[in-house]
Amino acid sequence: MPRLPALVFGRIDHIGVAVEDMDEALSLYRDRLGMPVLHRERNEQFGVDAALLGIGEAHVELLWPASSESPVADFLERRGPGMHHLAYWTDDIDSALESVRASGLELIDERPRAGLRGSRVAFVHPKSAGGVLMELVEPAKDG
Amino acid sequence: MPRLPALVFGRIDHIGVAVEDMDEALSLYRDRLGMPVLHRERNEQFGVDAALLGIGEAHVELLWPASSESPVADFLERRGPGMHHLAYWTDDIDSALESVRASGLELIDERPRAGLRGSRVAFVHPKSAGGVLMELVEPAKDG
Repeated sequence: MPRLPALVFGRIDHIGVAVEDMDEALSLYRDRLGMPVLHRERNEQFGVDAALLGIGEAHVELLWPASSESPVADFLERRGPGMHHLAYWTDDIDSALESVRASGLELIDERPRAGLRGSRVAFVHPKSAGGVLMELVEPAKDG
Repeated sequence: MPRLPALVFGRIDHIGVAVEDMDEALSLYRDRLGMPVLHRERNEQFGVDAALLGIGEAHVELLWPASSESPVADFLERRGPGMHHLAYWTDDIDSALESVRASGLELIDERPRAGLRGSRVAFVHPKSAGGVLMELVEPAKDG
């Protein structure tokens, strides 16, 4: 069975959390848990209002559906607020995606697409990853 | 509003993932994604068979219900396999738990209890944490 080189997923990049109320979520993570807000973005492609909070080498990514067409709106409808996806960091998403494909996982994105903060991202189908929506993230080189 | 000192949650300790088949899950995380298995444990208190896999400074914690009484069995029944909880690292769980309580979050564990690998852990109720089952972990000092 093909095995990914250990360095492809160097670390967890972030945990995506679907929220019903961004102000309430910021009150929890920023004000009560003390995590700094590192980035805010309205992303039209994903239909979300996003906030990235720092925790160690990783982030918590709060996602509020800015559009009813957003997959996050659908997620909230089906499952309620909570953990939405688990993102792994890579410095070479093209190689990582090729390795993931070669290992037999089913991709949602055959090619990387634009993510938050100028990153390149790709999602793996939860059906082939034990029910976890898995994301690969290559941050912008100046990020 | 009380704010936790930044160092209380130094980093993400692990993502707990509920699995329906431990061999299949290990095939995914260890064999396809290349993460090393750092620890295996049958924990009677939580009614789980657990595996800890290394990823950066954090872990993926695979949880299979070894007993039908396990909360993980209930989780699988209700939601299917996938992300179960999000655990934050602290080197002083007593202080961290006191800060979390003071900030108004609802605790499942009023006092730390024994976790995997000799750690001390406590859970926060997902109702007060935006639907995320949050765990605090103080690893064993020799861990």
